[in-house]
Amino acid sequence: MRTRVPDEAFEDRLAAVRDRIADGDFDAGVWFGATSIEYLTGFNHLQTERPVVLAVTADSVQLTVPRLEVERVEPNPCIEAIHHYFDYPSGNPIRTVAEMLRGLGAETVAADMDGAPGVMGYEGPALSEFCDVTTQDWVDRMRYAKSDVEVELVAESARWANLAHRYLADLVEPGAHPATVSQQASTQGSRAMLDALGDRYAVRTRADGPVHAGFISGEQTRLPHGHTANCRLREGDVLITGATANVDGYYSELERTMFVGEPSDEHVHYFELMVAAQTIAIDALGPGVELSHVDQLVWDYFEEQGVVEYARHHVGHNIGLGAHEPPYIDRGWEGTMEPGHIYTIEPGLYTETAGYRHSDTVVVTEDGTERLTYFPRDLDGNVIR
Amino acid sequence: MRTRVPDEAFEDRLAAVRDRIADGDFDAGVWFGATSIEYLTGFNHLQTERPVVLAVTADSVQLTVPRLEVERVEPNPCIEAIHHYFDYPSGNPIRTVAEMLRGLGAETVAADMDGAPGVMGYEGPALSEFCDVTTQDWVDRMRYAKSDVEVELVAESARWANLAHRYLADLVEPGAHPATVSQQASTQGSRAMLDALGDRYAVRTRADGPVHAGFISGEQTRLPHGHTANCRLREGDVLITGATANVDGYYSELERTMFVGEPSDEHVHYFELMVAAQTIAIDALGPGVELSHVDQLVWDYFEEQGVVEYARHHVGHNIGLGAHEPPYIDRGWEGTMEPGHIYTIEPGLYTETAGYRHSDTVVVTEDGTERLTYFPRDLDGNVIR
Repeated sequence: MRTRVPDEAFEDRLAAVRDRIADGDFDAGVWFGATSIEYLTGFNHLQTERPVVLAVTADSVQLTVPRLEVERVEPNPCIEAIHHYFDYPSGNPIRTVAEMLRGLGAETVAADMDGAPGVMGYEGPALSEFCDVTTQDWVDRMRYAKSDVEVELVAESARWANLAHRYLADLVEPGAHPATVSQQASTQGSRAMLDALGDRYAVRTRADGPVHAGFISGEQTRLPHGHTANCRLREGDVLITGATANVDGYYSELERTMFVGEPSDEHVHYFELMVAAQTIAIDALGPGVELSHVDQLVWDYFEEQGVVEYARHHVGHNIGLGAHEPPYIDRGWEGTMEPGHIYTIEPGLYTETAGYRHSDTVVVTEDGTERLTYFPRDLDGNVIR
Repeated sequence: MRTRVPDEAFEDRLAAVRDRIADGDFDAGVWFGATSIEYLTGFNHLQTERPVVLAVTADSVQLTVPRLEVERVEPNPCIEAIHHYFDYPSGNPIRTVAEMLRGLGAETVAADMDGAPGVMGYEGPALSEFCDVTTQDWVDRMRYAKSDVEVELVAESARWANLAHRYLADLVEPGAHPATVSQQASTQGSRAMLDALGDRYAVRTRADGPVHAGFISGEQTRLPHGHTANCRLREGDVLITGATANVDGYYSELERTMFVGEPSDEHVHYFELMVAAQTIAIDALGPGVELSHVDQLVWDYFEEQGVVEYARHHVGHNIGLGAHEPPYIDRGWEGTMEPGHIYTIEPGLYTETAGYRHSDTVVVTEDGTERLTYFPRDLDGNVIR
């Protein structure tokens, strides 16, 4: 049972960027992006107006943080030195970074961006005012293909998503409030995961649980990004659900189109078209397959069935530390699927009255694929009687 | 009772940016930031790899969106024309934007950034490849001072935060799980808000409720950004709580340091120091007051009491549509408090064993201040017996 990223994984990842640093003849690699810093070191934090900046050289890994993060970094085995400014704007984050780089003898650096991102009112100078900066997207690219460990963590996420989704289905009934059912399923799913994993649970949330399940219902399902309406469930409602769990930062995605009571003939018609489209996409996945080809197959099927007017988006996206990651299964994406890519497969149809979308999480392997989410996809498994 | 932003507010905001467009002799204002677009038009969306772009001219307001958002924009009374690309990367968002601007006769534009932000793998060209771009931060600056309507929405948020925080305190007991208590309080608070407001509730959440309450406990409270540990509550635990509610996109912030059972003498000592520091800050707020002065007063008090080694961050931040917004109450901030600014006041102390921080949300008025959060701040109100 794998529930957290082992220390060796960070050593491997750091070794991989050190190869790129050496190849480019840089003195250091520098990262401002929170997800990249977590990927390389395991130190996770919220990206705010207080920059956190990682520097990697051939023989050192150092981090600049605001004072309030120092104690959270100290136990990290990858990080050899911590530099801090007090806060922003009273401290000077980029000057602290420049001093860290000077101490490392780094004059030529490859950075993920030229200075900290301007979130929540941060306004800082470019790093290139202090040293010679080339931008790189090494980590973003490395994250396309997941290691075996990462696949195990996403599979573990799918396990708890499945349980919370079952709780969700069991809690749905006419008269229930969608927000309350969603929050209760999240609470029950989180508690089960926390108690089942015990001290193997990697602590990741703040004033919340690690599992989230919920749905939108009725007319809101017409909208791919619809909201939870403030009205109680009724017989005949269509639901579009979603469930996931945070397993040491990694996510899966499970979504289902469900029916409260017996679906109408129209409901069944579009449900079956959507499931057929999803099956076409799942069957087409594999190593070496063009991403655009999979999206095109679904589009061709929708055209053949005369329902392109109800299509609103492409087939899916990569998933891992981010809920949405490139590559995208999209007719405009240039590139092939590779072993370790983990895709959501979620073609959808949205009529004037309801939406129809499942989403499953599927990993591409050396010689095929494996579906990590496993809640029933068929009609019978998705009618709540 | 104010629970949503009225249409006239958007007319006022659009008029204010039109003045700036005219002053700068630009053909149009352009926004890529999701919060700015919401602020000007009321259209809210998740910032993803699919750019959403707003153009405002002297006589038109137009929006470019991915296909999947079209039906969500259509009911918006501010937006006169909707342009869309199918998806990313198969569609070409910036080309669609360039066509929108050409249709508006806009060759010289003032934009919040030079192209869509590179989130979730978006990689697009700069807008300046298509027209003459000057960058501006008009909306970020306008958002510093809230209108009376915005203050009412934050006050409404504080009301539901207070209720959820009461539920939280009532659910805490030795043996309870912190994640479960947090999620139950969020569920109960959300349901009360949804049922109390009925059709006056502005639908804002997706597969979740509008109210969140929760806490971190024990050793984790030493860390300003600590996490929810997977262990049950015990007599003698210190909690740092938080509660908020989403009221048509606006947030308040309520945080309390609480004790499970009787606090120790050490607990009481640092609790009282923290409350005294918070009182000093609250009393110092007001129109025309330098932000740095308020942070300095708290720092001086901590120095006088010999506890600066336990300080980890500045006094607070502005809050509204964003959970953290500038200006910051920080010794390095240059500027004064103005009527309509809404600040969190949250000086903290973090010892080797526990953290101590309350946070209250306070609005600066024409002639003083008003505290919007009102859960008891004193020791007796924060001991759970």
